[in-house]
Amino acid sequence: MTPFTFTIDAECAETWARAGTIQTPHGTIRTPIFMPVGTQATVKSVSPEELHTVGAQIILANTYHLMLRPGSQLIASFGGLHSFMHWDGPILTDSGGFQVWSLGHLRKLNEDGVTFKSHLDGSFHTLTPERVMEVEAELGADIILPLDICAPYPCPPEEAKRAMEWTHRWEERALIAKEQHRPEQTLFGIVQGAFEPELRKESARVIGNMPFPGLSIGGLSVGEPKAKMWEMLSYVTPELPRNKPRHFLGVGSPEDLVISVGLGMDMFDCVLPTRVARHGGLFTSTGRVSIKTSRFRSARGPIEEGCDCYTCQHYSAAYVHHLARAEEQLYYRLGSIHNIRFMLRLASQLRESIIAGTYPAFREEFLARYVPASEKVRDEQREKWKQATRAQHG
Amino acid sequence: MTPFTFTIDAECAETWARAGTIQTPHGTIRTPIFMPVGTQATVKSVSPEELHTVGAQIILANTYHLMLRPGSQLIASFGGLHSFMHWDGPILTDSGGFQVWSLGHLRKLNEDGVTFKSHLDGSFHTLTPERVMEVEAELGADIILPLDICAPYPCPPEEAKRAMEWTHRWEERALIAKEQHRPEQTLFGIVQGAFEPELRKESARVIGNMPFPGLSIGGLSVGEPKAKMWEMLSYVTPELPRNKPRHFLGVGSPEDLVISVGLGMDMFDCVLPTRVARHGGLFTSTGRVSIKTSRFRSARGPIEEGCDCYTCQHYSAAYVHHLARAEEQLYYRLGSIHNIRFMLRLASQLRESIIAGTYPAFREEFLARYVPASEKVRDEQREKWKQATRAQHG
Repeated sequence: MTPFTFTIDAECAETWARAGTIQTPHGTIRTPIFMPVGTQATVKSVSPEELHTVGAQIILANTYHLMLRPGSQLIASFGGLHSFMHWDGPILTDSGGFQVWSLGHLRKLNEDGVTFKSHLDGSFHTLTPERVMEVEAELGADIILPLDICAPYPCPPEEAKRAMEWTHRWEERALIAKEQHRPEQTLFGIVQGAFEPELRKESARVIGNMPFPGLSIGGLSVGEPKAKMWEMLSYVTPELPRNKPRHFLGVGSPEDLVISVGLGMDMFDCVLPTRVARHGGLFTSTGRVSIKTSRFRSARGPIEEGCDCYTCQHYSAAYVHHLARAEEQLYYRLGSIHNIRFMLRLASQLRESIIAGTYPAFREEFLARYVPASEKVRDEQREKWKQATRAQHG
Repeated sequence: MTPFTFTIDAECAETWARAGTIQTPHGTIRTPIFMPVGTQATVKSVSPEELHTVGAQIILANTYHLMLRPGSQLIASFGGLHSFMHWDGPILTDSGGFQVWSLGHLRKLNEDGVTFKSHLDGSFHTLTPERVMEVEAELGADIILPLDICAPYPCPPEEAKRAMEWTHRWEERALIAKEQHRPEQTLFGIVQGAFEPELRKESARVIGNMPFPGLSIGGLSVGEPKAKMWEMLSYVTPELPRNKPRHFLGVGSPEDLVISVGLGMDMFDCVLPTRVARHGGLFTSTGRVSIKTSRFRSARGPIEEGCDCYTCQHYSAAYVHHLARAEEQLYYRLGSIHNIRFMLRLASQLRESIIAGTYPAFREEFLARYVPASEKVRDEQREKWKQATRAQHG
């Protein structure tokens, strides 16, 4: 089995952008890369074959959800996530920590770990750094993450410091606990530190120096203004070792990808492309459009001229509009495929530009052309989704 | 362009079963055949490529729904249904008559036609035999149906007679009106007569003698006991011309297919396979199972051992169970593909048995093995779906 390696193929002379190659037991990943999210062992409405076709090289699955349903032991009895869900490429599982905070109820935190009530059936569960390593070993992903504490935004400095130090102690325990499990799995470290420049730098140094083969940047994109998020990355990246891949946890939108790459990030995961697609939002080179609006009613061309995705190759925007208005299931698939392909093509273009030495120009052109959803729209959406999640997970 | 033809390839010596070949401008259909239903220009959750893979040879689309949304003129401006929905095989469109009765509001019937209020936006529409021919010409299906009146069950004999005669007059008008439209489209006649043996025979004779190249049997499977339905077919079939294909409108379940073939039916359409799949009901050779029940929680094999569908070839029943319980969109696709493949494989087995001269034995074996949903369960389901449809369509 191929061990985990990371090599840098090219670096930008003017920014922190780099192009790299990750080897995992289930295949090669060329970075920068976007990882579609398959929360419940399925990328919503998209089949594994379709994921391969859109160019997915690695997907993410959520430990929290899978631990509760169908259970990590059951998945282990099927030979792990890869064979359970019929996806033979690399997988990354998160630690479940973030979901305990966003979905779990009645959380009780102590030095040992965190106890919470399931959003599904009200049953109580405890996650410790050791238990998370066990669960992730059962799931069998190629890359796994340790239990961490994600501070909210805003967060008082002393609370931010406490959460960071707590996370660091848990990460040391995770490193030790992992030794008892599967050597073919690679444990990334997680950098925290909330929105305190000094804490961010400290966390990057501490976690960067622990024997983690890769690093995830956590605790960002939790409701802060974008400028704040970029500022935090500017403190973190210079402190990180050059030779480890950097995963920007839970990020992001097309413009986030383009900007973060210049701030030294290599790997991205986010539900945004599939979630906005389900609500009618589709990516184009000039920004996000709403396919349900009447301007697409009789649009003969594809969603975007020149797009190489299955949807744009075979269907008019008018047909996609019709399916979306009629709330037909095929719409969710066609919309998701388009947006995932958009993200993966963008990642691939970013990589090419880094190798060609033209990333700064690519970034400039992209940002001049692409109109992002406004901060206001994003906040409203986040609030709406939160409400919906609460209602759903009751 | 290939004109419409029907040839009989084999006939059963003991029953009325026959195997045939239909040529249409968009391809060949081997009968008996099951036609998946694509109400809104999409077979719910299944792509056109997947329909080809499961062996679909023709699909049905609903004139009523498409006329209201996105509109038949819009579809015509895209070159018709085939190119609008990216399906290059044969299509049959119904006349919309049945949906006016089951979904429309404030219906007003007169000799000219029927006026109703749309279930979508409350707008008023009028369908006449002539208008239906125009709409179906715009949709551009290979086989089209004329406007008819579907009597309810139960129905007083005099009302049944009036509805039948009315339908016959409308069908004559449809034949004349069709002359002004697309010669490559084939108009089937519809046999009505409710549950009156003499009316059924009369309708079969009258419509069978009109210059329709094919015949649909309407007004059955509307809530009557199955025995009543079979009885009605036994009056109809002997009166029908041998050389025209017979389409059993809105039927049915696997056991309906097997029995109806012996009663002389060639073509079938029904939402049942996809609808029950969405509710967790999956077909196996011994009957319908509910994939959501805990017996499938850790089932390592496929839904059915030996099944050649995409779902059974790539996923364990446990994974399908997990997706269904988690209400994941991929479930609806995997379940629908399994059930449609089941129906198409069954149709193909029926055909082979007719050609081999073993249909009676095949039927006997199938019915001995396959436990159908009980009359009670069917009634409850029908009631539930009716309620859901009412709630949905307001």
